[in-house]
Order: sequence, then C-alpha cells, then structure tokens
Amino acid sequence: MNSENDIRVGIIMGSQSDWPTMKEAAMILDDLGVAHERRIVSAHRTPDRLWDYGRDAAGRGLRVIIAGAGGAAHLPGMMASKTRIPVIGVPIQSRALSGLDSLYSIVQMPRGFPVATMAIGASGAANAGLMAAAILALSDSALAERLDAWRAALSESIPEEPSDD
Amino acid sequence: MNSENDIRVGIIMGSQSDWPTMKEAAMILDDLGVAHERRIVSAHRTPDRLWDYGRDAAGRGLRVIIAGAGGAAHLPGMMASKTRIPVIGVPIQSRALSGLDSLYSIVQMPRGFPVATMAIGASGAANAGLMAAAILALSDSALAERLDAWRAALSESIPEEPSDD
Amino acid sequence: MNSENDIRVGIIMGSQSDWPTMKEAAMILDDLGVAHERRIVSAHRTPDRLWDYGRDAAGRGLRVIIAGAGGAAHLPGMMASKTRIPVIGVPIQSRALSGLDSLYSIVQMPRGFPVATMAIGASGAANAGLMAAAILALSDSALAERLDAWRAALSESIPEEPSDD
Amino acid sequence: MNSENDIRVGIIMGSQSDWPTMKEAAMILDDLGVAHERRIVSAHRTPDRLWDYGRDAAGRGLRVIIAGAGGAAHLPGMMASKTRIPVIGVPIQSRALSGLDSLYSIVQMPRGFPVATMAIGASGAANAGLMAAAILALSDSALAERLDAWRAALSESIPEEPSDD
Amino acid sequence: MNSENDIRVGIIMGSQSDWPTMKEAAMILDDLGVAHERRIVSAHRTPDRLWDYGRDAAGRGLRVIIAGAGGAAHLPGMMASKTRIPVIGVPIQSRALSGLDSLYSIVQMPRGFPVATMAIGASGAANAGLMAAAILALSDSALAERLDAWRAALSESIPEEPSDD
Amino acid sequence: MNSENDIRVGIIMGSQSDWPTMKEAAMILDDLGVAHERRIVSAHRTPDRLWDYGRDAAGRGLRVIIAGAGGAAHLPGMMASKTRIPVIGVPIQSRALSGLDSLYSIVQMPRGFPVATMAIGASGAANAGLMAAAILALSDSALAERLDAWRAALSESIPEEPSDD
Amino acid sequence: MNSENDIRVGIIMGSQSDWPTMKEAAMILDDLGVAHERRIVSAHRTPDRLWDYGRDAAGRGLRVIIAGAGGAAHLPGMMASKTRIPVIGVPIQSRALSGLDSLYSIVQMPRGFPVATMAIGASGAANAGLMAAAILALSDSALAERLDAWRAALSESIPEEPSDD
Amino acid sequence: MNSENDIRVGIIMGSQSDWPTMKEAAMILDDLGVAHERRIVSAHRTPDRLWDYGRDAAGRGLRVIIAGAGGAAHLPGMMASKTRIPVIGVPIQSRALSGLDSLYSIVQMPRGFPVATMAIGASGAANAGLMAAAILALSDSALAERLDAWRAALSESIPEEPSDD
Repeated sequence: MNSENDIRVGIIMGSQSDWPTMKEAAMILDDLGVAHERRIVSAHRTPDRLWDYGRDAAGRGLRVIIAGAGGAAHLPGMMASKTRIPVIGVPIQSRALSGLDSLYSIVQMPRGFPVATMAIGASGAANAGLMAAAILALSDSALAERLDAWRAALSESIPEEPSDD
Repeated sequence: MNSENDIRVGIIMGSQSDWPTMKEAAMILDDLGVAHERRIVSAHRTPDRLWDYGRDAAGRGLRVIIAGAGGAAHLPGMMASKTRIPVIGVPIQSRALSGLDSLYSIVQMPRGFPVATMAIGASGAANAGLMAAAILALSDSALAERLDAWRAALSESIPEEPSDD
Repeated sequence: MNSENDIRVGIIMGSQSDWPTMKEAAMILDDLGVAHERRIVSAHRTPDRLWDYGRDAAGRGLRVIIAGAGGAAHLPGMMASKTRIPVIGVPIQSRALSGLDSLYSIVQMPRGFPVATMAIGASGAANAGLMAAAILALSDSALAERLDAWRAALSESIPEEPSDD
Repeated sequence: MNSENDIRVGIIMGSQSDWPTMKEAAMILDDLGVAHERRIVSAHRTPDRLWDYGRDAAGRGLRVIIAGAGGAAHLPGMMASKTRIPVIGVPIQSRALSGLDSLYSIVQMPRGFPVATMAIGASGAANAGLMAAAILALSDSALAERLDAWRAALSESIPEEPSDD
Repeated sequence: MNSENDIRVGIIMGSQSDWPTMKEAAMILDDLGVAHERRIVSAHRTPDRLWDYGRDAAGRGLRVIIAGAGGAAHLPGMMASKTRIPVIGVPIQSRALSGLDSLYSIVQMPRGFPVATMAIGASGAANAGLMAAAILALSDSALAERLDAWRAALSESIPEEPSDD
Repeated sequence: MNSENDIRVGIIMGSQSDWPTMKEAAMILDDLGVAHERRIVSAHRTPDRLWDYGRDAAGRGLRVIIAGAGGAAHLPGMMASKTRIPVIGVPIQSRALSGLDSLYSIVQMPRGFPVATMAIGASGAANAGLMAAAILALSDSALAERLDAWRAALSESIPEEPSDD
Repeated sequence: MNSENDIRVGIIMGSQSDWPTMKEAAMILDDLGVAHERRIVSAHRTPDRLWDYGRDAAGRGLRVIIAGAGGAAHLPGMMASKTRIPVIGVPIQSRALSGLDSLYSIVQMPRGFPVATMAIGASGAANAGLMAAAILALSDSALAERLDAWRAALSESIPEEPSDD
Repeated sequence: MNSENDIRVGIIMGSQSDWPTMKEAAMILDDLGVAHERRIVSAHRTPDRLWDYGRDAAGRGLRVIIAGAGGAAHLPGMMASKTRIPVIGVPIQSRALSGLDSLYSIVQMPRGFPVATMAIGASGAANAGLMAAAILALSDSALAERLDAWRAALSESIPEEPSDD
C-alpha cells in the first residue's frame, strides 16, 4: 500500500544533544530503505508539539515512533499515551546516573501504555531502528528480505578468532 | 487576597492506589488549615485532564500542586511543564523497584522544569504538605504561626530516652 | 489475510512459575480477540525447543512473540536471535534482585538483536499484550478499533477524585 | 513589599568546590532579576555558621534557601530543621558514587522537615534557581511575567529537527 | 580513672522507632560491663539537643558515642562535627531503600569528620557496642579481658557441622 | 591421556571488542602451559556456531570453556546449557552500566545450569584462566606444581612496605 | 582412583543459618552420588579452622570446596587463598541488601584468587553442587553419565504449556 | 605511657596500588604527630602475613589498625577477626563498581567483628587517620589538643563566600 518513499517511522528526541545517539536509528533505517522523519519534540519544553505529534501520528501514516530521551525521560511514555501506534523508547546515557534514570523512566510504564524499551545508548538506538523495521516487515515482504539480508551480513561479519591488531 | 477557605493547593495522583500514601499530604494540610482539593490525574490514562489541570491551575488560584506517582511517574514532571506554579513531587513506593524508579523519574528533571522532590512514600507525602505550607506561609503570617507551632509540637513530642514498651 | 482465529502471537516463558505473571498478557489478548498460543520454552533446559520455536515462528504465521523470563533471563534475547519477527520481553520479578537482573538481561541486548522490553512483573506482561496488539493493529483495522476502545475505556474508568473506601 | 534589590534568596553550599555547580542557580536568578546572596556554609566544618544562618534567615528577609552539597550532604536537611522558609536541595555529583549518595542524603528526609530536592548536578542547580523564582513569583507578578517569558523563550529555542552540525 | 559505673558511652538515636535496633548495642555493653546512657536525639526535630549533647560530651566524661539513624540519617555525622570523641554510626534499615540511604548518608562523610560506620541494622548495632568496647579496652585492661572472653566464647559456640534441627 | 599440546580449554567471546579483556585469560594459560584455543562465538549473531561449539566441546576433548561477554551477556549461560563440561563466565565491563548488566546476566543462572562467574573485567579474565588451570590440575600433577609455583611467586612479589615511586 | 565413598567435596558455610540454603548443594551431590562433608567454618569467628581446612583440603583428598556466606562474605575468598583446589562460592541472601553485598564480596576477587561464583540463594547453592559434579565428572565417567542423566531428566520434566493449576 | 615515637598505628593495604589513597591517612597522622608504620598485607596473596600481623598487633603495642582494600576487600574484616584492637576500614575506589563492592565487603561485617568503615577513597583514608587520632586522644591529652587545633584550623579555613577564581 505504501510506496517506499512514504514516511513510516518518526524518530523523535528531547533535544539536539540526543542526536548523536539517535542518528544510529536513522542510519539503520536508511540502510534498510525505510523512509523516516527526524524531529525534536521535548516533553517538557514543547508539550504542545508532543501533543500534536502524538494526535496526528496515525493519521499522517506513521506506523512506528522511535523516541529517545535521557534523565526523567518522559517523552516515550507520554507519546505512548497519545497514540495507538507502537512507540519504541531509547534511554539516552545520562551524566550522573549513566542512563539508569532514563531506563527506569522509560521502561517502568504502567499497565495500559507500553513502551518497547531498548538498551541504553547507541546500541539501543540502532536496535530501535531494527525493531521498527521488524514491525514494518510484517506487512512488507521486500523489507523483510532486506532485514534478513542485514541480519545474515551481520552474522557473516564475525571472524572465527579474535585478532590482536 | 485569599480567604482561608479558598483552595490553594491541589493534591493530584496517578491512581486510586496512590491515595493511601497521598492522604498523608492531605492530613497535614488539614491540620494546618490549608484548603486543598484532591484529584486523580493520570499522565497516561487521562493526558487531557493533565493538560487542562496544568493550564488552568494558576488561573483558578491554585498556588502549589502536590503530585504523587509511582514507576515511570511522569505526572509531576509533565505538570511542571504545563504550569508556572511550584510542583512538589512524591515518589510512590513501587513493587519491584521499591520506588527507586519513581524517585529517578521525578527528580531527574531537565533544566527548565523543576519538581520539588520529596522522600519515597508516606513520609514524603507528609513532607509535601509541609513544603506547600511553608511556601504559602511566605505570604500568610497566620499560617506561618501555625506551621511554627506544628514544628514546635513535633520537637516537644520527642522523649529524652527510648522506652521498651 | 489472517482470520481472527489464526494464532498470531506466541506467549512463551521459561517455566511454569512464570505463568501467574505471563497470563496477564494472555488475558489482554483474549480481551482484544487476538488468537495466541502459550508455551513453556526454557532457554537453558530446552534449548532445542527454543531453536525450533524461533526457526519456525515466521513460517507458522506467528507475527509477534512475547517472552517472559527471570534472573539471567536469556529466553527473549535468544529468541530474538533466531527469528526476524518482533520479540517483546517481560522481566519476571526475581527473588533476590527483584527483577533488576531480569530487566538488565533482557533490555541490554547488543546491536542487531532488539528485544522490546516491558516493565518488570505483571504490568509489564499486560503491556506486552497491548504492544503485540498495537503491532498487529497496524494491518488489522478491526483490531485497531478494539484497541482504541480498550484504551478509551481505561481512560474513562478513572474517577475524578480518590476515595477512602 | 520587597524592592527588587532586597536579597530574597540565599544560595549556600558546603565548599568552594561546589561553586561551579551552584553558580548555575545564581545565573538563573540573575537572569530573572532575583537578588540573592552566596555563602559557603559547611554543615560539618562550620556548624555554628549553619546554626546562625538558619536561625536568622527568616528575620533577615530571606524567603528561600538553595543549598547544594555532595556525599553525606547534610547541609540542606540541617538547614531545613533550623528554619521555616522553604529549602531547596541540590545534590552535587560526587566522585565515587556519582551523586547517588548526595541524592539519597538530601531527598530521604524524615517526616517534618522537607527539602525540595532537585536533579543531581548542574541541571539541578539551574532548576533550583527556577523553583526559587516560581515560589517568589506567587506574590510578585512582575517576576511571574519574567518567569513566563523565560519559559517561553526556552520553548521557542527548540528547533524542529536535529542538526548534524 | 573511671570507675565501672561511670557512663563512658552514649547511645543516641533519632527516634523511638530506632530502639529495637539500637538496643543490640546496649545489650552488648551490658554484657561487657560498660556503663552507658541511652538518649533520643533527633538531628532535625531536636537540633539544639544535638548541639548540646555534642558540645558537652567530652566534658561529661563520655568517651564514645554510638549514633543510630535511618533515611537521610544526619545524626551521626552532625554529632561528629560537634565533638572530638569517636562517633560510631549505625545505619537503620529503612522502608523503601532498605537502609542503603542510611548507609550512604552516614559513611560518605567529608574529609575532617569521620564516622565509624557499622553494618546496616541489628548486626551493625551489636558491632557498634563491640567497637566502643574495643576502643575503651585500649586503656582498661579488665575490659580487654572481658572482650577477649566474649570473642572466645563466640568462637567456641560455633558447631563443627550444620544441623537440620 | 592428554598430552600437554592437546587443546583442553576453549576461550570464547562475543566479539572482537572483548579480546583485550579476554586475552588476560589466554596469557595466564600460556604462562601455565595449558594449551587452549580462542574463538569468537556470538550468542546472538552466530547462534549456530554456539550450538555446534557446545555440542562438540566434550567430544573434541575440551575440558573447560571460558566465556566472556558484556551487556545482556547470554554466551556463558547458553554454552552451559549445551555442554556438561564446566563453563567459566567473565563479565566484560560495559559502557553504560559498567559491567553490572554483564555480571547479573552471567551469574544469576537458574537451577540446573551453573556458570562459574568471575569478577568484572581484566582481573576476572585472568582469574578465569587460573580457575581453568585449577580444575585441570586436579588430574594433572605437573600442572598442579606449576600452579603452586605461580601462586607462590605472586605471594613473594609483594613488598613489605608501599613505595612512593 | 577414588571410590564413590571417598569424600571429594567439602561444603562449608559461615554459620548454621546458612544451612537451609546450602543443603541444596548437599542434596544435589546426594542425588548424583558424590560423597561430601558439611562443615561450619566461619572466616571471622573461627579463622584458625578456616586456615586448617584450607591448608589440609588437597592433602585430605578434597577436590572441590563449596563455600556459602552472606554479607561481607569473606569465607569463599579466604578459602581460595589457602588452597589450590577449585572453590565455588554461594552468595547467601542477606537481610538488608538482599545478597548484593554477598555477591560483590564473593565475585569481585583480585587477580590470583578466583572464586567460581554462583547465583544468590538456593538456586546458586544447587548449582554449586552441579558445578562440583561437572568438575569431578571430567575424570569420572560414571559420574559424567549420571550428570548427563540428571540434566536430561530436568529437560524432560518441562511441560509444553503452562497450567493454571 | 607511650612516647610519641612509639608506633601506635599500623596502616596496612592490600597492594602498592592502594598507596596513593592510603597515604592520605599517613599524612594526617604525620600532621598530628602520631607515629605509625605502613605495610602491604594482602589478605589473599599473603594470608600468613595477615595472620601474623593480626596476632602480634596488640603485643607489639599497636593500638589502632587502618586497613585499606578494594573490590572483594577482605583485609579489614579478616584483620578484625585476628585482633581485639580497633580496625578502621577504607574502601578503595575500584574500577568497574567505583568502590561500591569495596564498601559493601568492608562495612557489612557479621555480629562480633566490627570494622569502623570510612568513606570510599581519599577522603575516607584521611578520615581514617583522624579517627585513629580521636581514639588515641582519649588517653593522650596532648594529642587531643593537637586534634582540636587541626579541627579548628579546618573550620577557620572556610571562606564566607565562594570565589570564581
């Protein structure tokens, strides 16, 4: 139904400083040919933007939202309360508590509003891109094939033995 | 400007199950003669209620909001983003993580949106009532006297020696 | 393509003792009319069962796997390495470490193999059911409507004020 | 009643080494035109200074005390026991425990003596300044306007999209 | 110089609720024939009592102070700032954080003001009594002998093999 | 039965980035004259390699497996489910959680599948080599002598006093 | 060389109160037909007993020592410094810190003295028995067969589906 | 009875790498004119040295032992089991767990064997020196005066206001 150029994933984050982490998600989606948009949506500084983004997401054709945030990290959970489409949360590594605050704030959601939480930091952001692709691949067999190929390439890249170089 | 019957404090919480903790705040305010209201406002289940409550708080004459929440605990922080009046946060003791998740989610707010965080659980809720009173007492000398008296009574209640009974 | 009676979600868990938690996921899926199966698949005690389940999941028409585990909690992550379809992980509350071990073991997956991690315990299991439904609802508009209704009912169930009863 | 030049906020800290963190509070108060003083008051090294400061604070016209401390971090709590005016606590990031010790020592106050605890480190210090301003703004409409403007400017400074530069 | 009836150890605690823990210290001192007094001294509720107790301790002939406190647990550290004689701290097990808050608040003292910190809870209180005795035994050879006998009896009480009864 | 050149220990790790840690194990085995092999076996990226390695380990004459992994760290535990020979686990220090995630994921194994867990990081890897040697020394008296000598040399290398150089 | 009646494993623990946990190890060894002895050896209360036990262990024919301890938990590590034979450590679940103190004290051994650390509590004790058996099975093919059978029986005991009963 | 040149305090540590931390204790004792010795005594690498040191300490006229250790950190606790004189423990900051492992291993001693635990790292080491002096000052009035002067100088060194330089 969707052409590949349609934006199907929204990558949102609380501030510019989250981008070095969150671009890992964007790079994975680029590699897999999944069109996406990137927005700064701060739960606290721009709550109305959050409101509008969540309210309009499904209607605009977005199918998955990837939300990164650090510290109190309310963005993923608040987005999950505003839209029915799956929200994937990425805990940004924070300064004092190393992202443990971000992780707890994102994963410990109450009954009714799940956030699909990933690992803290860059690996988690990359995995958010892969999880979004896995969800979309359920109804996009070409993407499923590209995802299978990506996974196969990852496996094949592993050498047999460690090297000292 | 306010009469003592005007509601100056809003006690809000994420769910009915938070009430046994949060009523400690209400009891303190009752003791100190501070009129208040009690509302269930769930950040995730009733986000629009949260929006409206925050938007209208100052206009309705509320001067302090006490917000209790557990787990991901977004209520205090989201309220702080919606109103200029002071928000006091109470981390509810949670099941698996004993309120550590609640504490981190409430206290680790980003620059711009402070939440005055109290101790985990019932002591924290009682202290939220006292902090609200201390804030109001800055411009209410009768309340200041009642607060002084409350504090003096607390000090005087301490026996000299522990008792085995 | 699928009829509503087709099994689209597999709920798996490491042992019988996880069932009181994981049945929360099953109950949500029942409520939402999503056909599912329930299996005990232990990463360590029945690794071959894990292997076969993962290998066959997509081919059998499963579209989402919900995996609950406690302690070292390898089941969700190993399942994610064996299948391309989305895996949702539920950290079971453990005895000594209260599920913190389960949470870390499930959420801290390396780049390449995301597990959509939920909160520790029963709320997390219920949310796993809702996340599975949200994923399926992307290509099942009747389910999307039922999910919207479920969410609306949840919101409407929240009283205005806390009650002492 | 107060002119803008009257000192309404005391920023106190346990040692000179806390100043790089605590000056964030001072800068916010400067930005908002709130007159304040800055003092080193060590709970352990200068307990009498602490005693006198707390005893005289209200009488000298101070309306809010911001207290930063690290490690065992007794300053905010002891100040709260010596004065009725609101005390805002800032946990300084510590060397070995990253400020977790500071946070626990400040936030876990017993019933009777609330400390309005902020996030660990510089963000917390800045937020302490904003919380002090929010408290003062309850009876200072000009400050309330400046605070509203500060918040609006913060919101408007957020770009729509992240940038790679 | 001291007769055995002179009070050489002060056992102080923040509240009556700490007594079931702290009486373990008293029982050890009773067993070892070390005269002591028991006082409730709350850092926050009775700061002046703390001040006076610390100021007069050495002059009154006290040689060691054992201080138990929970949560923010400022009592041992504040006492250490008010007197030169050794202060032994006992972290009381707290409700939400199991005494981890008490431990950090007591042990993480800044340079200049040591608190000899014991284990969390009843074992720590008993050990505080033993540590006080070990200090006093340095200049009391009769006590040293009683302490040696106590330790020998403890060692001799250990059976060779565990028993199922 | 085995000559000293036979490979008796397999050192495996999840990725090339674990090698700087894991080579400490290899160096100890080299020092003690224990033949070993080094392999990259990723639980998630190369699950079939893990399967085959575990299945064949005992038959190939391996007597101990040392497995290092970080984060979710499933490698040691999955290997323990696939082979009867002892598996020694080394938690690799991770970025956000400093190896606490690795430690919990490795040590908290369920009943039936022990992993002999070592300390986090390089010391743990070195100790894994020593533990492997201690196991092999039970039936190799020459190795037992070399291990005794290694331990004696370590003890003798400790100076009496610390030096400022 | 050994008959089945020779004692090959020593199960030691710090106090009688550890026995309900440690008997899980004994039961596993009984099931597998591995002769063992059970001793109370307290690192602190009976240090000489520890010294003698460690010094004589290898000479008496012991091949593995299983040591359980809680809290500061020095027993396993001190035993590892006194004998070359493998020491398996079991962290006993403690009151205040739930065994996290026991775990850290046992697993974080310095280079030179490995302790093969198991999970906290009863599962860890059972696994200590299995690890001891796995080590002995390297040179006892009959035991290897019994261990294989035990593992196979465990796998076969897992039902396909969870049951509500 | 003692001349000032008699060695009254033993500073011991597990390895040379602990010296940069532990010399803070030595410097304080130097400042206060307390004669002391410095030894490397490793609980695991030189257990016999530990045994002898503890056994002879009181007889040699030592009155206090300061013991620093990191990680599993058994030295202070084992020393406390071998001698009746007070043992002060200093948790060395460790690499992966930042000294939390050291702290737990030192402070969580069982009933019978107290270790007077200080803060993690250099501040704790300095405080160990001060605590030793406070203990000795109980029967050395000249030292008591020097300690009072040291404390007074510390208090007087605190400036009134923070400085930007």
